[in-house]
Amino acid sequence: MDDKIQAAFEAGIKLGALYHQWVGTPISPETAHTVETAIEKAVGLQPFVTDIKVRIDTGLMVLNSFGYSELAGKMFDVSITTKVGDAVCHAKLALENEYPLMKIISIE
Amino acid sequence: MDDKIQAAFEAGIKLGALYHQWVGTPISPETAHTVETAIEKAVGLQPFVTDIKVRIDTGLMVLNSFGYSELAGKMFDVSITTKVGDAVCHAKLALENEYPLMKIISIE
Amino acid sequence: MDDKIQAAFEAGIKLGALYHQWVGTPISPETAHTVETAIEKAVGLQPFVTDIKVRIDTGLMVLNSFGYSELAGKMFDVSITTKVGDAVCHAKLALENEYPLMKIISIE
Amino acid sequence: MDDKIQAAFEAGIKLGALYHQWVGTPISPETAHTVETAIEKAVGLQPFVTDIKVRIDTGLMVLNSFGYSELAGKMFDVSITTKVGDAVCHAKLALENEYPLMKIISIE
Repeated sequence: MDDKIQAAFEAGIKLGALYHQWVGTPISPETAHTVETAIEKAVGLQPFVTDIKVRIDTGLMVLNSFGYSELAGKMFDVSITTKVGDAVCHAKLALENEYPLMKIISIE
Repeated sequence: MDDKIQAAFEAGIKLGALYHQWVGTPISPETAHTVETAIEKAVGLQPFVTDIKVRIDTGLMVLNSFGYSELAGKMFDVSITTKVGDAVCHAKLALENEYPLMKIISIE
Repeated sequence: MDDKIQAAFEAGIKLGALYHQWVGTPISPETAHTVETAIEKAVGLQPFVTDIKVRIDTGLMVLNSFGYSELAGKMFDVSITTKVGDAVCHAKLALENEYPLMKIISIE
Repeated sequence: MDDKIQAAFEAGIKLGALYHQWVGTPISPETAHTVETAIEKAVGLQPFVTDIKVRIDTGLMVLNSFGYSELAGKMFDVSITTKVGDAVCHAKLALENEYPLMKIISIE
């Protein structure tokens, strides 16, 4: 298997996984950073991940009557780098046309 | 509705929610504390919660060939307090006879 | 422990659990019924549950550019009955003032 | 972007997503098939998926004292096909050396 293809596959796994693991988490602007860190540490444990940055857009949080929100896919701005052999894949999860899109930014 | 009954209901909601939100998270002894904190902050946002403590038993983590584990229900030791009106419910999620049992400890 | 309190606690557990287990699932009006059935069967396995009905409001689904939606808390209309000893608790998860509220309907 | 790389990325996304969406679901040998169908329908909604088969190994279910089990990663046997342009990626999630491994089987 070509290393570039494998690196892209691994990046996809991690983005799909983190999205569905954390969507639904109770969250507020005050707790967002803790959740970002927890996600980064969790994803960082997984094989082939060399870099992971998670930002949650607190501006998209609509607080309910109890004063908190729920982590939604559209709040994510995630940047991940995977490495397999010499191939390096950089991919993102970010809002694009109202859809939380996962896409490959570069692969070398 | 009796406040004690309501407080018990609210405690149940939070324990059921946190279990199914976080089970499956990639975790290791090194990242466990960050996950504990993230769960405590998330649950603390929810209505009627006055106290929440989450401990994850790192001794139960069996590391896979990539050097990490996955958060499982049996690793949880959670203590939660909810308050509705004057009623206070203290409940736990902890391993009992191999089952991650949620139970009420006291209600006043 | 009073059976009524216990029945309410158990109902809360199940509602909290199902919400956070399934929120985020890719869904469409065509697949909603299958997901309803899967949730009913899963919750029906859990202790003290005597009845569970799950309806997902397909009218609230906003299809993305790929033609599907994502299961959100506000789409749920869930009715659950738990029984502990002689106590029977009937509770609901349904949209109320834009919030997916879990509440006890009756306890006997 | 090369279509093969994109197809592999898409396959990874879907496998990572389904794993973390459904792990933790209450399950038994009797309800396994309903969950398999629900997962297949949910994944089938997602872009670029042309085929998805989900089998859950009921032989790995250890029933708790209440008579049910919980969907674990090691129970999955998933086969997925994604297509981007002319590139077709076939990937699997299956138990290998005690680890629920996601891997590319072929790409054309």
